[in-house]
Amino acid sequence: MLKNDLFLKALKGETLERPPVWMMRQAGRYLPDFMTLKAKYDFFTRCQTPELATKITIMPIDQIGPDAAILFSDILVVLQAMQIPVEMKDGIGPWIPDPIRSTEDVGQSIVPDIHEHLGYVLDAVKMTKQALNERVPLIGFAGSPWTLLCYAVQGQGSKNFDIAKGFCFSQPDAAHSLLQKITDTTIAYLKEKVKAGVDAVQIFDSWGGLLSPEDYQIFSWPYIQQIVTALKNKAPVIVFGKGCWFALNEMGRSGASALGVDWTCSARNARYLSGGQITLQGNFDPSRLLSPIPKIKKDVHDMISEFGKDKYIVNLGHGILPNIPVDHAKAFVDAVKEYTP
Amino acid sequence: MLKNDLFLKALKGETLERPPVWMMRQAGRYLPDFMTLKAKYDFFTRCQTPELATKITIMPIDQIGPDAAILFSDILVVLQAMQIPVEMKDGIGPWIPDPIRSTEDVGQSIVPDIHEHLGYVLDAVKMTKQALNERVPLIGFAGSPWTLLCYAVQGQGSKNFDIAKGFCFSQPDAAHSLLQKITDTTIAYLKEKVKAGVDAVQIFDSWGGLLSPEDYQIFSWPYIQQIVTALKNKAPVIVFGKGCWFALNEMGRSGASALGVDWTCSARNARYLSGGQITLQGNFDPSRLLSPIPKIKKDVHDMISEFGKDKYIVNLGHGILPNIPVDHAKAFVDAVKEYTP
Repeated sequence: MLKNDLFLKALKGETLERPPVWMMRQAGRYLPDFMTLKAKYDFFTRCQTPELATKITIMPIDQIGPDAAILFSDILVVLQAMQIPVEMKDGIGPWIPDPIRSTEDVGQSIVPDIHEHLGYVLDAVKMTKQALNERVPLIGFAGSPWTLLCYAVQGQGSKNFDIAKGFCFSQPDAAHSLLQKITDTTIAYLKEKVKAGVDAVQIFDSWGGLLSPEDYQIFSWPYIQQIVTALKNKAPVIVFGKGCWFALNEMGRSGASALGVDWTCSARNARYLSGGQITLQGNFDPSRLLSPIPKIKKDVHDMISEFGKDKYIVNLGHGILPNIPVDHAKAFVDAVKEYTP
Repeated sequence: MLKNDLFLKALKGETLERPPVWMMRQAGRYLPDFMTLKAKYDFFTRCQTPELATKITIMPIDQIGPDAAILFSDILVVLQAMQIPVEMKDGIGPWIPDPIRSTEDVGQSIVPDIHEHLGYVLDAVKMTKQALNERVPLIGFAGSPWTLLCYAVQGQGSKNFDIAKGFCFSQPDAAHSLLQKITDTTIAYLKEKVKAGVDAVQIFDSWGGLLSPEDYQIFSWPYIQQIVTALKNKAPVIVFGKGCWFALNEMGRSGASALGVDWTCSARNARYLSGGQITLQGNFDPSRLLSPIPKIKKDVHDMISEFGKDKYIVNLGHGILPNIPVDHAKAFVDAVKEYTP
């Protein structure tokens, strides 16, 4: 039995003494021990070696003390499993040598057997659960189909993913075929992750906010909804769409247990737009962790007051930045633990 | 007297047969003639040579037929005039060799005499007005103080302008001092542009959407409001804050004549959030110009129906992309001219 189940209780909407807290990318480059491992092992080696993924996942639990762990991995491992090779290039980031640009390209990708192609993730889940020893719950995650299409088609990160959007607008049939393949893979992948032991799953729609509300309903939301529907009876599902304030209403009615919000959407707007009933997660501006520590603590307390302590999970509005001092990250977590209504 | 004053009438909220149309970055890299000039003259030479700026400004008027011209220039010329050198580097974009990081750095920037340091822009305005020969109105523009601070402090473009935000959060006094200097410069600059002949001005808050609503009210909006207040009796002012849906309410009460909106904010949301009275400008997703021409025309007509033909200026939700075929850009403008309610 979990010793700290605040996070799972918040996902159920239970009344709590204080909200739980974790940070997106909490096992990341702001931690000196992470940087030591980063210097020794390349990106996908860290993802693909269960011992390393476990070690990295546990680091912030020991050093910062959040109420949930999130498995160290990357959204792009799903593309790799689909036979769309992805590399990590210095100074560029994700790099897809043969980006998808046609129906033929889509046809060459596969819906893989999860055990065969992503078994290392399942091993990492089991190993991490053991290492956590019931201290806190473990979150598994996947990218949204739209966000993965962005990388698969664009071929690398981008300000506006213009090539990916152009592909959708000029070859919508090919785009939908790819989105469905990614969706089918993601559903199978997340189901296996739950079987392997994760206590909740989060879907990251990092680039959903690049779409108009209308296009979001065409190219992103229907596929996320499929995933939520397939998973919601297996584990609580959190949907985080960066910049997707305009879709909070549909998201609130989707069967998800919680919605992530970024810092451009105020607590009041987020509660209003999402229908007021669903648990919300967010939304501290990651750059705000560069403020002096007393200011961080005050801002966290104000944020909890605005969201309310129930149906709320404290988090950043996006991943923690590499240049955040560790004591500032810890102050963020401590502020939540010190919160009194 | 202007032969085509649709744009100015829309800024006054007058009832029209059809809305006016122009495109952000309409004098840009999608035009082959622009690319010919780009190959011959570097970026700031094009900005600083009135004959070239005039030629580039007129190009889309002749070739695409929008209802307004916007002076070819760059928001960063204001930093240059303030003695903060800016270069344009191949493959990187804007580059500030000595970014501002301290109170001392802020102290070394100046509030310049506009005629002395930006006289070439005023010359370009006069030359362009002559060349336009009253065909359509001419828009002058400036970046918002916050957006210019982003570049001045970060030193280059960025996904999240983390250094610029860190500067604001850790050294707020220095940040406000810089913002005020940029504001004072911008007010003087836009006043001189109006005297030189521009018919309206637009303020681009390209990076306002990186701030939380609360921080927007601290670091961006008060400075834009100062500019609007100082200019509104000299010329109509348009405020465009990319990603700033959360501030449309304040913007609607600011004295601006129109507000630009991007494509993530639906017409209905934009009308509601801005208070329903002010003229709106936008918001076609620039990537949507990669759709087939009949689809572009249909989408434009739908967009006009959603915004309503009055108190509305058709535009993109951000600058036109370099990879848009010229006939697609022209189809966008033509669709507006062909619109019947």
